[in-house]
Amino acid sequence: MVDILHRVGIQASPNEVFRAIATREGLAGWWTDDTRGSAEPGGKLHFQFGDRGFFDIEVLEAEPGQRVLWRVTDGPQEWIGTKIVWDLKQEDGYAIVLFKHEGWKEPVEFMHHCSTKWAVFLLSLKSLAETGAGSPYPDDAKIDNWN
Amino acid sequence: MVDILHRVGIQASPNEVFRAIATREGLAGWWTDDTRGSAEPGGKLHFQFGDRGFFDIEVLEAEPGQRVLWRVTDGPQEWIGTKIVWDLKQEDGYAIVLFKHEGWKEPVEFMHHCSTKWAVFLLSLKSLAETGAGSPYPDDAKIDNWN
Repeated sequence: MVDILHRVGIQASPNEVFRAIATREGLAGWWTDDTRGSAEPGGKLHFQFGDRGFFDIEVLEAEPGQRVLWRVTDGPQEWIGTKIVWDLKQEDGYAIVLFKHEGWKEPVEFMHHCSTKWAVFLLSLKSLAETGAGSPYPDDAKIDNWN
Repeated sequence: MVDILHRVGIQASPNEVFRAIATREGLAGWWTDDTRGSAEPGGKLHFQFGDRGFFDIEVLEAEPGQRVLWRVTDGPQEWIGTKIVWDLKQEDGYAIVLFKHEGWKEPVEFMHHCSTKWAVFLLSLKSLAETGAGSPYPDDAKIDNWN
């Protein structure tokens, strides 16, 4: 088992950052503009990236200002069954996001890609919460031939 | 043991990307402008980030257009003894960089930070190789309260 880890600090409150990862509108502002479903605990979300693919997740936990936990139910084979954890805390005037995408079976090349791409989207989340404007798909920064 | 993984695709040749990670001038163009030492196999490099800290590495391998391998000899405690691997290949008109920073003892919070920060610097490397201008320290994008 290998994990993707990231940390960003956002000049906003943990509750503001929570809203960006625990509401449909928030998620559509930094990950993909085509985000459907319910971000409530027990809800299911569908993230569509045009004809490039999609991710389906189930919201296992959503504790305001503190923690969001998802389980991936459909999408790329390597993602199915993995969990995505968002831990939030306040430090030095920043909302700190400790991000973990855990449960990858193997450190395949696609995992390398997803690790870099998560960083790009976390910086999009940071930008959304700090300035009101993120760069969700299809306006996301492209990192390689897999996009 | 846990690893940081990344993948970027650069619209340049693997040899051009190799020069950006296997010469002192190249490294100074995307990681820190204060890069000292020799990037030849067997050489030692010192990367200084003002008063924020430094990394010292030893170049174990540098195979043009293919692979660079470093061992960290000094710097933050968590980095000492870790290895940094750069594997290069050509695909779809891109030089693909498969990056691995391996040998972390524990997935500490600092490792989360370094994972995101490596993504930022790899995109700086991409920019340098594609446009001639990277964003090395002190002009690097800041990601959190640890910078």
